[in-house]
Amino acid sequence: MNFTIQNVLIAIEDAYLTLDVQVIDGKIAAIAPDLDVVGNTIDGSNKLLLPGFFNAHTHSSEMWQRGIMSMLPLELWLGELYDFAPLDLEKVYLSALGTAVETLLSGGTSVVDHLVLTPGQELETIAAAVRAYEEVGIRAFIAPLIQDQSLTAGIPGGESNQNHAPYFRSTAATLEIIEEAVRQFHRPEAGISIVVAPTGIQLCSDSLFIGCIELSDRHHLCRHSHLLETKAQEKLAQEKYGCTAVQHLQRIGYLSDRTSLAHCVWLNNNDITILAQTQCTVVHNPLSNLRLGSGIAPILKYLQAGVNVSFGCDGASSNDSQDLLEAIKIGSILHNTTDPDYHNWITPRKSVEMASLGGAKGLNVADKLGSLTLGKQADLVMYDLTSLSLLPRTDPIGLLVLGRPINVVHSAWVNGKQIVSNGQVNTIKVDDLQQELFKVSQWETKRKSPTVAEIQTHYRQVMDI
Amino acid sequence: MNFTIQNVLIAIEDAYLTLDVQVIDGKIAAIAPDLDVVGNTIDGSNKLLLPGFFNAHTHSSEMWQRGIMSMLPLELWLGELYDFAPLDLEKVYLSALGTAVETLLSGGTSVVDHLVLTPGQELETIAAAVRAYEEVGIRAFIAPLIQDQSLTAGIPGGESNQNHAPYFRSTAATLEIIEEAVRQFHRPEAGISIVVAPTGIQLCSDSLFIGCIELSDRHHLCRHSHLLETKAQEKLAQEKYGCTAVQHLQRIGYLSDRTSLAHCVWLNNNDITILAQTQCTVVHNPLSNLRLGSGIAPILKYLQAGVNVSFGCDGASSNDSQDLLEAIKIGSILHNTTDPDYHNWITPRKSVEMASLGGAKGLNVADKLGSLTLGKQADLVMYDLTSLSLLPRTDPIGLLVLGRPINVVHSAWVNGKQIVSNGQVNTIKVDDLQQELFKVSQWETKRKSPTVAEIQTHYRQVMDI
Repeated sequence: MNFTIQNVLIAIEDAYLTLDVQVIDGKIAAIAPDLDVVGNTIDGSNKLLLPGFFNAHTHSSEMWQRGIMSMLPLELWLGELYDFAPLDLEKVYLSALGTAVETLLSGGTSVVDHLVLTPGQELETIAAAVRAYEEVGIRAFIAPLIQDQSLTAGIPGGESNQNHAPYFRSTAATLEIIEEAVRQFHRPEAGISIVVAPTGIQLCSDSLFIGCIELSDRHHLCRHSHLLETKAQEKLAQEKYGCTAVQHLQRIGYLSDRTSLAHCVWLNNNDITILAQTQCTVVHNPLSNLRLGSGIAPILKYLQAGVNVSFGCDGASSNDSQDLLEAIKIGSILHNTTDPDYHNWITPRKSVEMASLGGAKGLNVADKLGSLTLGKQADLVMYDLTSLSLLPRTDPIGLLVLGRPINVVHSAWVNGKQIVSNGQVNTIKVDDLQQELFKVSQWETKRKSPTVAEIQTHYRQVMDI
Repeated sequence: MNFTIQNVLIAIEDAYLTLDVQVIDGKIAAIAPDLDVVGNTIDGSNKLLLPGFFNAHTHSSEMWQRGIMSMLPLELWLGELYDFAPLDLEKVYLSALGTAVETLLSGGTSVVDHLVLTPGQELETIAAAVRAYEEVGIRAFIAPLIQDQSLTAGIPGGESNQNHAPYFRSTAATLEIIEEAVRQFHRPEAGISIVVAPTGIQLCSDSLFIGCIELSDRHHLCRHSHLLETKAQEKLAQEKYGCTAVQHLQRIGYLSDRTSLAHCVWLNNNDITILAQTQCTVVHNPLSNLRLGSGIAPILKYLQAGVNVSFGCDGASSNDSQDLLEAIKIGSILHNTTDPDYHNWITPRKSVEMASLGGAKGLNVADKLGSLTLGKQADLVMYDLTSLSLLPRTDPIGLLVLGRPINVVHSAWVNGKQIVSNGQVNTIKVDDLQQELFKVSQWETKRKSPTVAEIQTHYRQVMDI
């Protein structure tokens, strides 16, 4: 696992230098000109080296429905998703492979998989995802998606009295599954971490959140959750708690410097102050927020308030891809329309920092990952600057972030192990994966979601559509 | 130029059929199952055939500054662009090649190049672009960018008295250049059309617009222009005309069913009615509008009012790519945040129609292009549905539009001539182009635009920043 990259472009302050990088025992040992070669030699000429990015929020198994989900807002979209979601474990494995490959080939070396669990096969679902991520070699933070309330409870009641079916599994049983998952799979040093991850205030009781806090404290786990993705959730929080969701989560103690919160579209200024004070991380999923019509998260306000922000692709049914560079681009430029003062706009260098160090901070690993710093683990990506999409030569990071880079990841390493070489994933056979994905799927067009038919009248009424 | 595609997926209403397509003399001659083979046989299995898309607004030579332009709003960004813009004719040629290749490999078979003219070499600039487009074989609508006022005239004066340097060339001389360009290059039947294209109300006199109308009428040319891209332009129109820019353009007769208008971000409801009545086309450039912070064009309102809408990448310095599929995706999902009623959201099928037939309508060629219709010219693109980014198999058009397709264009034809085969452009050597682009450029980071330094105080004041 020792190697030396020679003559690679490295970003230094506002410029670039051509330097060598030594990696020893999986860690960055030296960055300087004309270093002695240690281990294998890697030719870095005409290439740019960056820390690996974090795909800081996704749901891998949504890959099976990407491209076919109707154009719907989250609450109805979830109805359609779950009507067609039943997955066998082989499919869970394949879509985790696909998520890992697309993330890797767009600059990501870490993925946070808010993993939908197959009922009755919860630990087997996690095992299938773990197997896929270990085979690819990407660093994985597996956040088993849990809830203890039924889907319809996630829609505000408004002035009507809504009855919701009880959830099929008890809160205690759900927490026991997570604790068992920690025992079986939580091996951060080997690149697999378990994260506690109630889906969000819309479908979780306080008991579930509090149980997750206890697990998190006992096992030093990070915390994750969706937060205020939609206007409906903002309304719902007021109905449930009489205050904002952020105020409530603060009150019960869920917010911390190892809590990352996906979406954060509908927060007010006081909520933003609370996120800053509690040192939470916002995971911005711009493509999903647009596709589902959720809104534009106030990312410039977060940055100005000192809140850490990273990027996620979100599940592939609401994106409908796992191309992290696309999420970074759109998640950066989208906000220029929200503030006329261009001094506040996100620069490409800032985007890279958010995608790397921002991701690491949100997972409490900024001391080990997220930048080209001596002693940090070598999660690295090297981009080929001779790709047509990165030409003509201008500012490499500017074009990587603001352009539409295609076939640009030349090499990637996780913990010093090379898993992409010469543009190809070298740990699994991607051709075989493609054939397998092709074989077990078919082209289709029309589907009818019974759940959407059932709930949309109420949804439209309560949302005043 | 005769060929038969066998067993290709074709979109029919809300479904797909596997059919054969005969192309004879550059035109679609038959679409049906089990057709006799005429000419070459093309294997269409596991592929999707769509009409070629239109990249309905770009500025090819901006490719030279993509990735390096500062994060600035249009008026200041233009200052920086022109400070570093001087281009030789070889560069004009190379960036037109690059624009053509990126457009082609993302589903486009036609490009509208609102071409920046090198002062003193205007016709030579056009000739260089024509040569590039003819070599690649893409259909090109060359819209030489003209103005007769200086850059600072494009910023509202507010309460200050601004003096602007006179433009270096007279209106009459400018119009003469366009007429000469028509004589030399306007050959629609050969795939090269000249379009009259004053840059917009912000930098053009009425005389220039009226001269363009006359040229357009005399030579049956389409008309193009930027329109109300920024809030500054909305203010400026009121200062110049005492009415909206749309009202003024209607009054002087520029609006017609062969007029396409790029951006259209800052129109009011009455303006929209005028566009619908005059049958103008709006060219939506979502990525540029985000990058420059121009705003979100009210595209759903245009569609509801019956205004034709197509998609453009805009110049690569404000995008910073020429990936048409990216523009189509973002230009479709962006608007879900502007209307809570999801019944109004753009579906993937609608996006495809806007990108193909919508593009053709805007260039007055809907009778010849823009759909898979018997008798229409064979501008076709065939997508490889076994690409990882289009797997697993779901709804092919859904995933093509909403996903992040990479390496998916298998074949493309313009007027029945195959110019992409097996994912490779076969009319020019793209490897050579890459080497040339690499050779004549260099990595850089910091530049200082004297024009931005000069004008930004006034800009910030008048825009109340």
